[in-house]
Amino acid sequence: MAKELKELTPRSESYSQWYNDLVIKADLAENTAVRGCMVIKPYGYAIWEKMQRYLDDMFKETGHVNAYFPLFIPKSFLSKEADHVEGFAKECAVVTHYRLKNDPNGKGVVVDPEAKLEEELIVRPTSETIIWSTYRNWIQSYRDLPILCNQWANVVRWEMRTRLFLRTAEFLWQEGHTAHATEEEALVETRKMLDVYADFAEKYMAVPVLKGVKSANERFAGALETFCIEAMMQDGKALQAGTSHFLGQNFAKAFDVQFSDKEGKRDYVWATSWGVSTRLMGALIMSHSDDNGLVLPPKLAPYQVVIVPIYKNEEQLSQIDNKIEGIAGKLKAMGISVKYDNADNKKPGWKFAEYELKGVPVRLAMGGRDLENNTIEVARRDTLTKETVSCDNIEIYISNLLEEIQNNIFLKALKLRESKTIQVDSYEEFKEKIEEGGFIYAHWDGTPETEEKIKEETKATIRCIPLEGDKTQGKCMLTRKPSTQRVVFARSY
Amino acid sequence: MAKELKELTPRSESYSQWYNDLVIKADLAENTAVRGCMVIKPYGYAIWEKMQRYLDDMFKETGHVNAYFPLFIPKSFLSKEADHVEGFAKECAVVTHYRLKNDPNGKGVVVDPEAKLEEELIVRPTSETIIWSTYRNWIQSYRDLPILCNQWANVVRWEMRTRLFLRTAEFLWQEGHTAHATEEEALVETRKMLDVYADFAEKYMAVPVLKGVKSANERFAGALETFCIEAMMQDGKALQAGTSHFLGQNFAKAFDVQFSDKEGKRDYVWATSWGVSTRLMGALIMSHSDDNGLVLPPKLAPYQVVIVPIYKNEEQLSQIDNKIEGIAGKLKAMGISVKYDNADNKKPGWKFAEYELKGVPVRLAMGGRDLENNTIEVARRDTLTKETVSCDNIEIYISNLLEEIQNNIFLKALKLRESKTIQVDSYEEFKEKIEEGGFIYAHWDGTPETEEKIKEETKATIRCIPLEGDKTQGKCMLTRKPSTQRVVFARSY
Repeated sequence: MAKELKELTPRSESYSQWYNDLVIKADLAENTAVRGCMVIKPYGYAIWEKMQRYLDDMFKETGHVNAYFPLFIPKSFLSKEADHVEGFAKECAVVTHYRLKNDPNGKGVVVDPEAKLEEELIVRPTSETIIWSTYRNWIQSYRDLPILCNQWANVVRWEMRTRLFLRTAEFLWQEGHTAHATEEEALVETRKMLDVYADFAEKYMAVPVLKGVKSANERFAGALETFCIEAMMQDGKALQAGTSHFLGQNFAKAFDVQFSDKEGKRDYVWATSWGVSTRLMGALIMSHSDDNGLVLPPKLAPYQVVIVPIYKNEEQLSQIDNKIEGIAGKLKAMGISVKYDNADNKKPGWKFAEYELKGVPVRLAMGGRDLENNTIEVARRDTLTKETVSCDNIEIYISNLLEEIQNNIFLKALKLRESKTIQVDSYEEFKEKIEEGGFIYAHWDGTPETEEKIKEETKATIRCIPLEGDKTQGKCMLTRKPSTQRVVFARSY
Repeated sequence: MAKELKELTPRSESYSQWYNDLVIKADLAENTAVRGCMVIKPYGYAIWEKMQRYLDDMFKETGHVNAYFPLFIPKSFLSKEADHVEGFAKECAVVTHYRLKNDPNGKGVVVDPEAKLEEELIVRPTSETIIWSTYRNWIQSYRDLPILCNQWANVVRWEMRTRLFLRTAEFLWQEGHTAHATEEEALVETRKMLDVYADFAEKYMAVPVLKGVKSANERFAGALETFCIEAMMQDGKALQAGTSHFLGQNFAKAFDVQFSDKEGKRDYVWATSWGVSTRLMGALIMSHSDDNGLVLPPKLAPYQVVIVPIYKNEEQLSQIDNKIEGIAGKLKAMGISVKYDNADNKKPGWKFAEYELKGVPVRLAMGGRDLENNTIEVARRDTLTKETVSCDNIEIYISNLLEEIQNNIFLKALKLRESKTIQVDSYEEFKEKIEEGGFIYAHWDGTPETEEKIKEETKATIRCIPLEGDKTQGKCMLTRKPSTQRVVFARSY
């Protein structure tokens, strides 16, 4: 029965229901009494913590420091940058009062009307405004630049339709906010952080990504240019996994942040911002997992190896315990995280299903015969294959295997993306092919109007104008006007 | 001039102004446009990050896992536990609307009256209610217990008078929330986490603490018993540095969280919660620092050693650079964090003052004569003493020195506490001595009324009923009624 409770809707039946089932049943996250706000459960949070740790190290290696800015933004701040307010001031959580009082008419508490704030506070949907109002005091001369700050924080956007990890009212993220003396330096920073995100996605998450620029329609509200990494999920839909914005002098002008250069000339400061969020959890889950449950890349798995004993009696268990102690010790010495599950209230079959669901990359099992033969059974989560190997040098074997699994699931995801990526030249063909999912490289005339029309008619958007690859010119598939290069269309999360 | 800008108000003149000066001038934190909310600046945040890392390791070593629960709490949840609502539902940030719209009468944005929430949401002042409403779904039987969760989060309490780190409207903290099958187990957990906090304060922060129990007046709203660690600041005032609460079955009853034991009998779950916050930064700063600036314990210093070259010309600088490269490499290999500051736009004297202000534990300086003699000048921040030592085995010397500094500042703080701790037996003497600051051990009859009267007349509160030390009975200094042991009185932050 426990097995059945853990069963997932197959992907072929409903990809969307499979995802929901998986997030819940693998104990990653769940909805709460607060609309659109999730609980990230310990197993899900352990994966997010690993992501945070690696990203944080990468930020620090590239010269960034962490800081913390206020949760609340005065309402008037949002209005200071014209595009920004259009994009962010609409669906947000508004704090209007600072006190409750006992309900004079009965039980409970009510808002105290006398405790109304003079100016409403907005729970940050992103922090450009509060940060640039702060940078104003930090920056006088070129000697104060660059500022390379990041913060790990929660943000709130009042989304109407929410899905665990992919779109929630509150989510966790990091937001980098940098300030520079020159346009060139800010542009270099924007691209550098895009590369950091792409490296992280590919090397740690094992998720291949396209690097590109957003069209004007999809640009961050307040940016001159938004760079992004786009990943393809198994259903062929795109997921924006990270963005890096070149903000020009927009926020410096909005908050009057000027500096003196070496010659004493005053100019506005150049800005970037960049972020990834718990949405990456959704990308990770949907990129690799299967109908049996999660498939985790070894670099992000809370534990990389689980060991299950299969025994007839207490005596045999104690022999296996001894043997495993040595093996686990060797694995740990190699930096491999190991869980030995010799709990006696669950059968091995139940444990196997559980760890498959949880996506543990490697499962080791040892029974009586293995004990006699100095062998152990090794099961790979990614391929669901098993083999029996010698316990001698098992730590080297497993260490190599984890590397192989990390590479294999990346290559598998890359192969899937390649198999679902096509070029089309006519709009008729586009409308037909977009129904099958996947990335479509097509020519576009560069106008928001054309993009809007394609979106209305096909639900596909321009995911990005790719930075790498073919730059051949052509004609827009819809208007036949000139196009400088193919762009990537897809339906998206 | 730079030097003057960095000068602090001496402690003897105004301890409180000295603290404010120090927090600002050492670049730890600053106030923002949002009332009561601070920015934690990169240097301050780097110290907090070290605290987080060590505490997190200690939580994990004691079997805890991290998770994340929503920022918002439905208003009705706060009312479910009677004491809790009294303590926390009053001064808080209330979200009443979820949308802004363009102001029809002009520029900017206004709250959209049509986007009023059916039930207001409170920005969490603490998370017992939202977490226990979640635990209800996680707990069916004894097999689901214990739950040992922690979260790192921001919380908001609408304080009227705020001070950087010590009392801010928004602050960062961790809150552990555990669920247990028995009262005994929950009590063990409460005490275990108190010990973790005390160990952290003494071994990492170098701040000696008293462990004790709070009187009913000072208990957490909703707890049966609050344990605490209390530290003494240099001005003799007490600072509560961490609390661990035994919540009994209060929250389980409020949210109907029951479990079946091995025999199938149903009972309410037992709870604890425990937390420390960015307030620890205030404790750290006030415990060790002096009129020249911060004094940081080596274990929490963002860099433990700074090296400054003193040179006549480019050629000499390049020789020193070479020499220091070797020394810095050896220090880093020992796990010591090092900053080499050979920037040429600031004079050595300016750098010395800067790093003194920032509390870097050890400053090394190398000049031309040192280069000739294979020596280096070593300056200790804690004692402000200098000596010239050989570069041979400098890494061993520095490693030992850092340990000595860590111990020395702990002992210095301990000595200060001992010198400002007295016993008194009469209320007359108490009223006189309390003016001098410090901890006063005195007998108390155990009633809230007596405590309240003493507080009104002297501004002193019972900081804790100590767990360790003398337990001799006596008579209350005020009422002469029987007392089971002396308790610790002090004025506090």
